[in-house]
Amino acid sequence: MEATAGVKPVGREQIVLAAERIAGRVRRTPVLDLEIGAFGLDCRLSLKLELHQLSGSFKWRGTLNRMLSAEIPAAGVVAASGGNFAVAVALAAGHLGVPATIFVPESASPAKLSRLRAGGAALVIGGDFYDDALAASRRRAEETGALFLHAFDQPEVVAGQGTCGRELAEQRPELEPVIVGTGGAGLIGGIASWYRDQVRIVSVESERTSSLHAALAAGEPVDVEVGGLAADSLGAARVGRYGFESARRWVDEAVLVTDEQIRDAQLELWRQARIACEPAPAATLAALRGGSYRPAAGERVGLVISGGNVDPAQLA
Amino acid sequence: MEATAGVKPVGREQIVLAAERIAGRVRRTPVLDLEIGAFGLDCRLSLKLELHQLSGSFKWRGTLNRMLSAEIPAAGVVAASGGNFAVAVALAAGHLGVPATIFVPESASPAKLSRLRAGGAALVIGGDFYDDALAASRRRAEETGALFLHAFDQPEVVAGQGTCGRELAEQRPELEPVIVGTGGAGLIGGIASWYRDQVRIVSVESERTSSLHAALAAGEPVDVEVGGLAADSLGAARVGRYGFESARRWVDEAVLVTDEQIRDAQLELWRQARIACEPAPAATLAALRGGSYRPAAGERVGLVISGGNVDPAQLA
Repeated sequence: MEATAGVKPVGREQIVLAAERIAGRVRRTPVLDLEIGAFGLDCRLSLKLELHQLSGSFKWRGTLNRMLSAEIPAAGVVAASGGNFAVAVALAAGHLGVPATIFVPESASPAKLSRLRAGGAALVIGGDFYDDALAASRRRAEETGALFLHAFDQPEVVAGQGTCGRELAEQRPELEPVIVGTGGAGLIGGIASWYRDQVRIVSVESERTSSLHAALAAGEPVDVEVGGLAADSLGAARVGRYGFESARRWVDEAVLVTDEQIRDAQLELWRQARIACEPAPAATLAALRGGSYRPAAGERVGLVISGGNVDPAQLA
Repeated sequence: MEATAGVKPVGREQIVLAAERIAGRVRRTPVLDLEIGAFGLDCRLSLKLELHQLSGSFKWRGTLNRMLSAEIPAAGVVAASGGNFAVAVALAAGHLGVPATIFVPESASPAKLSRLRAGGAALVIGGDFYDDALAASRRRAEETGALFLHAFDQPEVVAGQGTCGRELAEQRPELEPVIVGTGGAGLIGGIASWYRDQVRIVSVESERTSSLHAALAAGEPVDVEVGGLAADSLGAARVGRYGFESARRWVDEAVLVTDEQIRDAQLELWRQARIACEPAPAATLAALRGGSYRPAAGERVGLVISGGNVDPAQLA
């Protein structure tokens, strides 16, 4: 457990700096506006298609901002992840020409492992859980002097993810609320830090990956058990301290959905919009279709479709 | 063989009228701008993500424009297709609440057949080839008085597809050339009718579905044998008369690619941008990667990513 005393939420100025730092290396992902009635919903939806980002997810933004914020030592960078963060680190290390070592828990999905193997990073596969890999990555960083990259709990990472919210606010200033799938709270923390009180922000987790929901109830990040369909894409056992500080100030609702609702939304996103995405972004639509979040009349709802590192055969 | 005498290319004013007619019923599909170096190319690409359109392809535009241009008789509409046009007709008929009968050749792909079966249209499956289904659909229309819808060779259809080009010109006026995959020449005809001489238009077909290439060489639509990977998505044996009239005036190059190049591009679109698309749109990228079209220095190239009715398992 790390100390939370003195941890401050990321500020807008850090997000502006991040956007400048990563400019030209990040895709400005487009927004798809849907007709009333799409997905059987009586509201207007706009989908921020962040799955078309480099590395297939928003993790690219935070990873790049963290790496460009530091002098990278000769030992390179070290990280722990079996998911989208690992994919982003491997690609970013290649992009910047630095060595990377990634500690991958054995629970990583085959789709993500195969993406990882295609990159140039050194993979160390072992340990049942993310926390084991995280501990190993920290030790390695201490031993070698490599730059330690956290998947979600560093201010540069949260600020980088915030650039996704800043872009969406520029692209579609009329959206409210903005609904975000929450794992370690890096993305929702960054987005909430950008919008602050100007637009309502809704967090969605599955009932079996409810780390932000639990943290908000407890008043601090707490451990939860994670499992189910979305474990791979939403499943942080404990939200990050930086994301939490933003979320507790500026996230208006933290709702839960079932695995069945996520699976249904994932298939409908493919069927009705040819979007092949992971459980985490599908959870945002699941919150609407399942009624966990009920939009008011006339609302234009923004959904962040944040990750596409899915095995497409699962959509067949 | 139908007479081509008196066939005029679709004009811009017909495209403007089409856009007004279908407004509110069609998605304004977004554009994804890519970084230099994406797909190993030394030019800037912008992808018009028409695969996120209703029905999963641009066919929605022309179908809807054709149906909204006529009084639809009590017998409804009749069409022939085993592909994206059939999907669009089935969905549009449901949308407008009119009966539809679709003649489907036995060569239709399983992915498209399963989409079709999910709709409310009556399917008549039979005949080895599209031309058999087309003849049967014409007979049925004559017998019942139903409105006959052609997949590509009616001016309202070409004008409807032209709205995709008009949108792209509004969204990214700086693009040149615009590269389009060609089947029956409805899409490229509509797009060429919008851009006319203002922007270079490049047509791409596979070597085994080269109906526009052959027509331009012959000076009129001629029959070609179709086959290979892209037969299902690019394979019209003969281009439409209306599309041809636009293409012969305003298409600057008609290039060919191999099935292998298309397959490679399809996989790279998934790998590098999480776009799950059919062979026809992948052919546009294949033309660049394979060198069939070589961009000049500094060109910003537009690719129309026009159909997503692919079996996602093929991308795994």
